[in-house]
Amino acid sequence: MPVQRADARRNYARILAVAEAEVAEHGADASLEQIARVAGVGSATVRRHFPSRRALLDAVFHERLDALCVRAHELSGSPDARAALLEWLTAVTAYAASARGLAVALTPDAPISADAAHLNACAAKFTEALDPLLRRAERDGAVAPGLTVADLLTLIAGIVWATEHHQDPAAEAHRLLGLTVAGLSPKS
Amino acid sequence: MPVQRADARRNYARILAVAEAEVAEHGADASLEQIARVAGVGSATVRRHFPSRRALLDAVFHERLDALCVRAHELSGSPDARAALLEWLTAVTAYAASARGLAVALTPDAPISADAAHLNACAAKFTEALDPLLRRAERDGAVAPGLTVADLLTLIAGIVWATEHHQDPAAEAHRLLGLTVAGLSPKS
Repeated sequence: MPVQRADARRNYARILAVAEAEVAEHGADASLEQIARVAGVGSATVRRHFPSRRALLDAVFHERLDALCVRAHELSGSPDARAALLEWLTAVTAYAASARGLAVALTPDAPISADAAHLNACAAKFTEALDPLLRRAERDGAVAPGLTVADLLTLIAGIVWATEHHQDPAAEAHRLLGLTVAGLSPKS
Repeated sequence: MPVQRADARRNYARILAVAEAEVAEHGADASLEQIARVAGVGSATVRRHFPSRRALLDAVFHERLDALCVRAHELSGSPDARAALLEWLTAVTAYAASARGLAVALTPDAPISADAAHLNACAAKFTEALDPLLRRAERDGAVAPGLTVADLLTLIAGIVWATEHHQDPAAEAHRLLGLTVAGLSPKS
């Protein structure tokens, strides 16, 4: 029954898109009922696609990581290597700042280092996606020679952790990333 | 009996100096017996001055904070505002990287955010000590206008947290501080 299958795919994609928006706004506590309501489907349909809250969060998490990797590949063709790199660093910082609740929800056994575990899990994927972008910025003299993807992800993880209790963590993380990119005191 | 009092003061200072060195090397697990041995006093003398391990760690912690504040005041008279600021940032990063175990030992109820709590406790003292150094660097154009002591301490806390599991945390924190000072990609 191809019509039903297409319906099911559409429902899956719609539920996932709504779940991403709800998780971005409310974190891992996003309401499954609210997701069903906004997606215009019944709770049973949500449960058929995502048997548990964890399954849904996991799907959101992988969807966003994939989107960040796809964005890195797109940006690697951009004419301005520095702007491309900065756009990606900004996106990954915004994601990490919004995804803390998500990361903790997905790693219940390691709440203290959830961010580290989460970023470790992403690191291999991100390294493959980001390395061409970083090497091109290096060739253009836009970054210090030898800077690694691990350096960038470590600094971002630290910024996200250190701004977690700020009243607007995403905005503060963005601001501190800007300071780190520009340098606290670059040699003139 | 002034002679005994002078002896007691000398013992206290010697035990504290040895404890600082042992804690820097072994963290909060430093052996009290080893501290007594190196200081050339008996365990009973150590216990008379520091009734508990916590009392000793607390004294080490305050001693080092005071030393960092004294250093900031000394540096505020230095002719090169940028070099003075960087020397202090390097010292506080080295301290924070070495003091993690110390901070956790002193805040058993808040192990997750021990660093944040510890740095919060230091922030008021550090702000008073560092602000003149930072404002002078700003007047000399060595740092971006409006940079705050809180920005510097937040970035350092993040770096120290993110490098905690590195095989050489102090060296890695030092290297990442250098990247943050120079800027990942300063505008040329």
